[in-house]
Amino acid sequence: MKNKLKKITVGVALLMSTLVLTSCGFGHKSSKNYSTTGSLSGTYQGVIKNGHYKTSKARGVNVSQNSNSYNLKSFESGLTQVSKRVFSTKNYIFQEGQYLDTSTVENWLGRKSKSNPEGLNPAEGKKSDPNPEYIQQIEEQDYMQESGNSMKLHGVTIGIGINSEYNYQKKTDGPNYTKNISNAEVKRQGEIAAQKILTRLRKKKELRNVPIVIALYKQAPDDSLVGGSFFAYSKNNGSKISSWHKLDYRTAVLPKANGTDQETKSDQTDNDSFSNFKSQVQSFFPNLSGVTAQAQYNGSSLTGMHITITTQFYSQTEITSFTQYIARAARKYLPSGIPIDIKIQSSSEMQAVVYRNSGSDKFQSHVFDSY
Amino acid sequence: MKNKLKKITVGVALLMSTLVLTSCGFGHKSSKNYSTTGSLSGTYQGVIKNGHYKTSKARGVNVSQNSNSYNLKSFESGLTQVSKRVFSTKNYIFQEGQYLDTSTVENWLGRKSKSNPEGLNPAEGKKSDPNPEYIQQIEEQDYMQESGNSMKLHGVTIGIGINSEYNYQKKTDGPNYTKNISNAEVKRQGEIAAQKILTRLRKKKELRNVPIVIALYKQAPDDSLVGGSFFAYSKNNGSKISSWHKLDYRTAVLPKANGTDQETKSDQTDNDSFSNFKSQVQSFFPNLSGVTAQAQYNGSSLTGMHITITTQFYSQTEITSFTQYIARAARKYLPSGIPIDIKIQSSSEMQAVVYRNSGSDKFQSHVFDSY
Repeated sequence: MKNKLKKITVGVALLMSTLVLTSCGFGHKSSKNYSTTGSLSGTYQGVIKNGHYKTSKARGVNVSQNSNSYNLKSFESGLTQVSKRVFSTKNYIFQEGQYLDTSTVENWLGRKSKSNPEGLNPAEGKKSDPNPEYIQQIEEQDYMQESGNSMKLHGVTIGIGINSEYNYQKKTDGPNYTKNISNAEVKRQGEIAAQKILTRLRKKKELRNVPIVIALYKQAPDDSLVGGSFFAYSKNNGSKISSWHKLDYRTAVLPKANGTDQETKSDQTDNDSFSNFKSQVQSFFPNLSGVTAQAQYNGSSLTGMHITITTQFYSQTEITSFTQYIARAARKYLPSGIPIDIKIQSSSEMQAVVYRNSGSDKFQSHVFDSY
Repeated sequence: MKNKLKKITVGVALLMSTLVLTSCGFGHKSSKNYSTTGSLSGTYQGVIKNGHYKTSKARGVNVSQNSNSYNLKSFESGLTQVSKRVFSTKNYIFQEGQYLDTSTVENWLGRKSKSNPEGLNPAEGKKSDPNPEYIQQIEEQDYMQESGNSMKLHGVTIGIGINSEYNYQKKTDGPNYTKNISNAEVKRQGEIAAQKILTRLRKKKELRNVPIVIALYKQAPDDSLVGGSFFAYSKNNGSKISSWHKLDYRTAVLPKANGTDQETKSDQTDNDSFSNFKSQVQSFFPNLSGVTAQAQYNGSSLTGMHITITTQFYSQTEITSFTQYIARAARKYLPSGIPIDIKIQSSSEMQAVVYRNSGSDKFQSHVFDSY
């Protein structure tokens, strides 16, 4: 199933790349072939070449690798978050990975075999008790600096997503089985893969002398409503992994079900304040609203929330009033000092957004309207 | 078909209103039963009663009245726009209509008959050549001021949506026919309905002495990709329509198809600048993006745009870079000085938004992410 998806996506990606592109970006007539996307505060600028966005050489591979789409977004955003620890957004420009191409990544993500000696996952073994596929996704990010009229590579970040459970069938269309993979095993498998990948990357001429950051991500289970998180990274100048820095990110879905263990006291506080917010919102409108959140923690500190409110609206004036109310309730009930966004949607589409950016103390709102 | 939908929606609305609501809004412990939603700049505050939003007495009627949902949103937002000409957002508080209830509005929108003497639409006549249903939707908005511990009604706005075409079948499941309704007829039917509605409203004790604004809206055809617009309003202190003020709003879809007549030179300019924006955006990414806009004009001036960009993204980093690029391209290519929003979406959901509010000269962006 995953393999079939993989092939279709690659097919689409190839098709896309044969489109003839003619016009030029922003009409720069200088001798520079490169420009950048411009940056929002605290984010990287991205590389534009001859007016076109420089897409990844392995574009689309990870889309097919994740049956849980939360793992996909969270892996990519989390990897950028880790990169910022090493490559500052002020001094570096982001470029999608150019050194690992689609077939390389697909081979690495496969099982090791005679025909695929580079596979990072073990051979299947007994069909009735198969070896797990540990390594689920790999992403490369390049960090550049301007150098005269061109861009020069000054660093690479590699993310490795490792499964925390393995789902399999003993026979085609048979019942599904799940093997849990312990945190210790996730770490061990990630570190083994990291060393192999680092060794392989150092063999490429262009990557011989740049810092290579490798970050390890524990995938969330397929049925999770939030993605996994990065738990370690290393910054390497040579071809041996130098040392691992522990990362203490955690993700959670709020409100927690009754009876769920709260991991810390502050978890309890965060959950309570979100539950207050939720019951306020639910009492505001005669139709009951669905109110859920994804939360991210670093250690015991809440570092951000993505909230989704789903309700039925009967008019544009209801949407406007509801949005105003949410902006006020958010200020009153939600934790201060962290980035939060709140999607306000009906069953069919997003109707408004209320958000507070990192570093800001003000919520902003936008209502989607129509002429 | 429309009638069936109508009944279902009313059913849902009634069901909703039987939900037992228990908790209280924002924990105000004062003697005031009323509070307000708080306001975004340039918008009305809305009325909250005992912590609950005060919904319309005719809630949901218009949802079932519009086969083209653009007519619904545009009618409601446009009506608020007209109200702002008479009731300033600083001095008045918005309340959903409390004086026309669901059954009243439904009767008025029906055809006149023995069992429905209040129907504003003519009897059907010959099935092979039926009289059009002219009046398609009616909306009431109340404008309040605080008065001691309560809210007092200080004005009412009524919007009337009049069809510009009438679709019918000569026999059930037969072919569809369309009658165009001329602008003169739209105006005439709107003015007739307005006088009838005004007379009826003045019979209600609470509405005897407040200013009643009536605004006329020409519905867009069912297959339009943009809603209709308001073309006249009157502000009435008595029970005779005093005089009609012409409104010169127009809506359009951009880019215009080749060969379409441009109505004015400035239309041509607006269309050209949008086409430039569109081709820049389309050349940026290897996958072709769909780029369309709804534009609103007041006379010959462009007063706002809602732009939708649909493309396929392969990663969160692509979404971030694309959004940065769009914010820059918008500043460079799109008309300045008017509110604009740009929805950036994949086939399945909104991924980011770039917008400039009315009165601002800066585009803001927000990328929807996931943990």
